[in-house]
Amino acid sequence: MVKANKPTAAGEGTTSVIADYILASDFASIPDEVRKEAIRTLLNWVGCAVGGSRHEAIDIVLAALSPFAGPAQVSVLGRTDKTDVLNAALLNGISSHVLDFDDTHLKTLIHPAGPVASAILALAEHRPVSGEDFLHALVLGIEVECRIGKAVCPAHYDVGWHVTGTTGVLGAAAAAGRLLGLSNQQMRWALGIAATQASGLQAMFGSMCKSFHVGRAAQSGLAAALLAANGFTSSEQAIEAPKGFANALSTERDYSEITEALGERFELLLNTYKPFPCGACDHPTIDGCIQLRDKHALTPSDIDRVSLKVHPVVLELTGNRHPRVGLEGKFSVYHSAAVALVRGKVGVSEYTDEAVNDPETVALRERITAEVGQDIGMDQADVTVTLTNGRTLHTFVEHTIGSVDKPMSDDDLDLKVHDLCDSILGMDPVCNLISVCRGVLKLNAAASIATAATPTIG
Amino acid sequence: MVKANKPTAAGEGTTSVIADYILASDFASIPDEVRKEAIRTLLNWVGCAVGGSRHEAIDIVLAALSPFAGPAQVSVLGRTDKTDVLNAALLNGISSHVLDFDDTHLKTLIHPAGPVASAILALAEHRPVSGEDFLHALVLGIEVECRIGKAVCPAHYDVGWHVTGTTGVLGAAAAAGRLLGLSNQQMRWALGIAATQASGLQAMFGSMCKSFHVGRAAQSGLAAALLAANGFTSSEQAIEAPKGFANALSTERDYSEITEALGERFELLLNTYKPFPCGACDHPTIDGCIQLRDKHALTPSDIDRVSLKVHPVVLELTGNRHPRVGLEGKFSVYHSAAVALVRGKVGVSEYTDEAVNDPETVALRERITAEVGQDIGMDQADVTVTLTNGRTLHTFVEHTIGSVDKPMSDDDLDLKVHDLCDSILGMDPVCNLISVCRGVLKLNAAASIATAATPTIG
Repeated sequence: MVKANKPTAAGEGTTSVIADYILASDFASIPDEVRKEAIRTLLNWVGCAVGGSRHEAIDIVLAALSPFAGPAQVSVLGRTDKTDVLNAALLNGISSHVLDFDDTHLKTLIHPAGPVASAILALAEHRPVSGEDFLHALVLGIEVECRIGKAVCPAHYDVGWHVTGTTGVLGAAAAAGRLLGLSNQQMRWALGIAATQASGLQAMFGSMCKSFHVGRAAQSGLAAALLAANGFTSSEQAIEAPKGFANALSTERDYSEITEALGERFELLLNTYKPFPCGACDHPTIDGCIQLRDKHALTPSDIDRVSLKVHPVVLELTGNRHPRVGLEGKFSVYHSAAVALVRGKVGVSEYTDEAVNDPETVALRERITAEVGQDIGMDQADVTVTLTNGRTLHTFVEHTIGSVDKPMSDDDLDLKVHDLCDSILGMDPVCNLISVCRGVLKLNAAASIATAATPTIG
Repeated sequence: MVKANKPTAAGEGTTSVIADYILASDFASIPDEVRKEAIRTLLNWVGCAVGGSRHEAIDIVLAALSPFAGPAQVSVLGRTDKTDVLNAALLNGISSHVLDFDDTHLKTLIHPAGPVASAILALAEHRPVSGEDFLHALVLGIEVECRIGKAVCPAHYDVGWHVTGTTGVLGAAAAAGRLLGLSNQQMRWALGIAATQASGLQAMFGSMCKSFHVGRAAQSGLAAALLAANGFTSSEQAIEAPKGFANALSTERDYSEITEALGERFELLLNTYKPFPCGACDHPTIDGCIQLRDKHALTPSDIDRVSLKVHPVVLELTGNRHPRVGLEGKFSVYHSAAVALVRGKVGVSEYTDEAVNDPETVALRERITAEVGQDIGMDQADVTVTLTNGRTLHTFVEHTIGSVDKPMSDDDLDLKVHDLCDSILGMDPVCNLISVCRGVLKLNAAASIATAATPTIG
C-alpha cells in the first residue's frame, strides 16, 4: 500500500503526494471490489460513448476540426472515422457525455470516466498498453480526479465550475502520465500543465459545451502528459500554490481529502451509473413518476397537477421551466417529470428536440411545480400527483435506482449498453463489446476495446 | 460609430453587446491613432514571436505534439517548420510570450497581442484575409480582451488568474470569428465556447506554462470560432450568466467597462511595448539601476548594497529571491536589478540560465533589498545604491521607458525587432519584415507577414 504523507493545513506537498502515489501504485494492491467497479465504469463509459457518437455535436466537431487534424491514428468510438490521438480524446470525451447518461460520483457531481477513459483509450490505440495497465491507469486517474474534487467541493461547484471539466483534466493527465512512464518530476509537471488548463463553466449546461468540457479535459490532460514527457515545465505545486488550482478555483479547500488513506480508500467505489440520460439529481423524481404511472396506469388526461419536493441542487441545476431543445430538456426537472408520466420510460428518445416540444408533454409540464423539500437527499424525491377526479397519489423515493444504495446491477448495465449501442454496432457486436470490457484484465492490448466499439466497415 | 447598449448592473446583455459590436464595426470608423498603435502592436508581436522561436519551449512542444499534428498548412514563425492552423496558433502564441518581451496593457496586465495575433495570422495563412481586415480584427480582438479584463481586474488577477490566458481566449475568438464571417448567434456561441475554456494560473509564472497560456488562448479561441461557425452551441450569456465567466473567475465585476463607449474609446491606445524582457512591473527598477550605473560608471565591486522601493505588485509577482533558471529570473526583481547593475543592459541574454547563475550577479543579488514604497506607481521605482566607500546614490524613476507616458518610439521598436530577429532571419529580411508590418494596410494577403517572419530555406 502506498502511504500518504500528511500535508500541512496549507496543503504543502499535495502535488508531490499525488505524483508519488500515481507512480508508486502497484496493481496488485488494488482491491478486487475496486477492479470490479472499474470494469463496470469502463463498460458504462464505452456504452455511452458509442451511444452518443451519432449526436450532432460530434458531426459538428468533426466538420470543424478535421481540416486541421493529424493522421488517422485511432478510433472515434461508434463511428468509422479515424483521427489523431488528441482529437480522438476530445471526440470520445464529448460523445461519452453528450447524452448525460454516463457515471456520477455523487459527492462531487463529477462524471469520472469521461475525461480519463477518453484520454487513455486514445493513447492505448497509439502505443501498446495491456488491459491490466489500462484498468490500473483508469483507477488512478479517477482517484486523482475525485479526490481533488472532494478537496474543493461543494464550494468549487457553487462558484460555477463544471467540476468534471476542472478536475477531469487532472485525472486524465495522471492516468496518461502513468501509461507514458513519466518520472516523478515529469508527473508533477503534467499535473501542473493540466491544472493550468482547468476550465468549464456551468453556464454551459443545456448546450453542447457541457459535453465539450469532458472532451477538452481528456484532450488537455493527455496533452499535458505528452508535453511533460518531453520536458515542458510547470509549477511543481500546481494544486496547492498560493495562486494555484485550489486557491484560484475555489473559496474553500481541504487538502486532506486528497491525501488521506491514499491507496487504501477508493472514491471509485462510490461511482454510480445513470438509468436515465439526464442530470443525476432528477433521477429520484423520474423514478417516482414512473412508479406512480405504472401502479395506477395513469394517462396524462388523468392528471390535474403534480407537486415535487426535491433536493436544493435540483432547482439550481435543472430549474429550466421552458426547455426549447433536447439538451435543455436534460436540465429541466419539469420536462423530466412530465415525459416520465407521459411515456412511462425515460431514455435517449425522451430528450430529443421533438420530445421536448411534444404538445402533450409540454401541457403536462406546465401543471408541475417543484420546491425544495426539508431534509430531502440527493437520491430522494417526494412526488404528489393530484388527479382530475380529485384523488391524490403520493410516493416518496428513499433511494433512486442507480444510486449508491440501489445500484444498477451488472444485468442492468448490459441492458443499458445494448439499448445505447445495438442500433449503431448491431446486437452481436455489442455482446462482444460487453465481453471485451468485462474481460479487460485478460487483454494483451487495451486497444481491443476501441476496435470492439467501432462499426465494421462494409 | 457603434453605439453601446447600456446593460443592467447584473450585466444583462453584455455578451450580445460584444457580439453586436464585433460584427457591426466598420474599419472606416477606426481612428488613425488606433490604426497606428495597432501596427506598432503587430510589429512588436511579430518581433517577439520570431525572437522567441528558438526557445527550448518551442522545441519541446514541436517534439511532443508533432506526431499528432495536422497538415503542414501554415508557418511556425521564425522557423522552417510548418504545421496545422491550430497548432501554429499555439506555437506562435508561446514563442511571442516566452521571452516576456511582448506588450502590456498596464491597467489589466494583459499582454494583448499574443492570443489575438497568433490566432488570426494562422487563420490568414489558411484562407484569404486582406491586410486591412487583419488589422481590423486585431483591433477588435484586443478591445474585447482588454475590456473584459478591465471589467474583472484587479480582483480577477488577485484571485490568481493569468489574465492574458483567461481574457486572451475571448479576444482570439472575437477576432477569428470576425474573419470567419460568423452570424450574430454564432459569435455569441464563439464567445461562449471561448469563455468556457478560459484558464491559466499565476502559479505557473517562472515556468514554460506562462507562455503556454498565451498559445493555448490563441488556439482555444480560434477553435471556438471554428466550432461556432459549424453550429456548435454554447450559452449565449457566457460573460454575465450567474455561473458564467465574470462570476466564476472573479470576486468583482463592472460590466460597464465592457460596454461603455464601445467603438469610441480604445484600450489599444494604452498598449505599451517592453524595453526589457521581463515583467513590466520591474522595468522602472531596471531603468533606475541602468541610469545610476551609467551616470556613475559603477562596477559591482563599488556597490555595498541596493535598496529598492517599488509598487506592491512587484513583490507579489517578482519577489523570487533565489531564481534558479532563466524563466524564474524574469520573476525576480532582485535578479533584474543585479543584472542591470552588472551589465548595464537588460536583454534576452540577461535571462538565460547562465546569466541567472553568474557568480557576480548572484553575489550582488544577495545585497539587494526591496520594499513597497508609499504611493509608488506601476511605472515608478525608487533606487538607492550605497557604495562600499560609504557614499549613497539615489534616483527616482517618474515614468519608466516603455510606459504609456514615456513610450517606445517607432525607432526604438525597429531596433528591438532587429535585436530579436537579426540572428534568426538576417538583417535584410528583418528590414523587410518591419516594412511589411508597417505596410500591413496595403497588403492583399496578411499571410505575407508570416512569410516575412520565417527564414528562407537553404
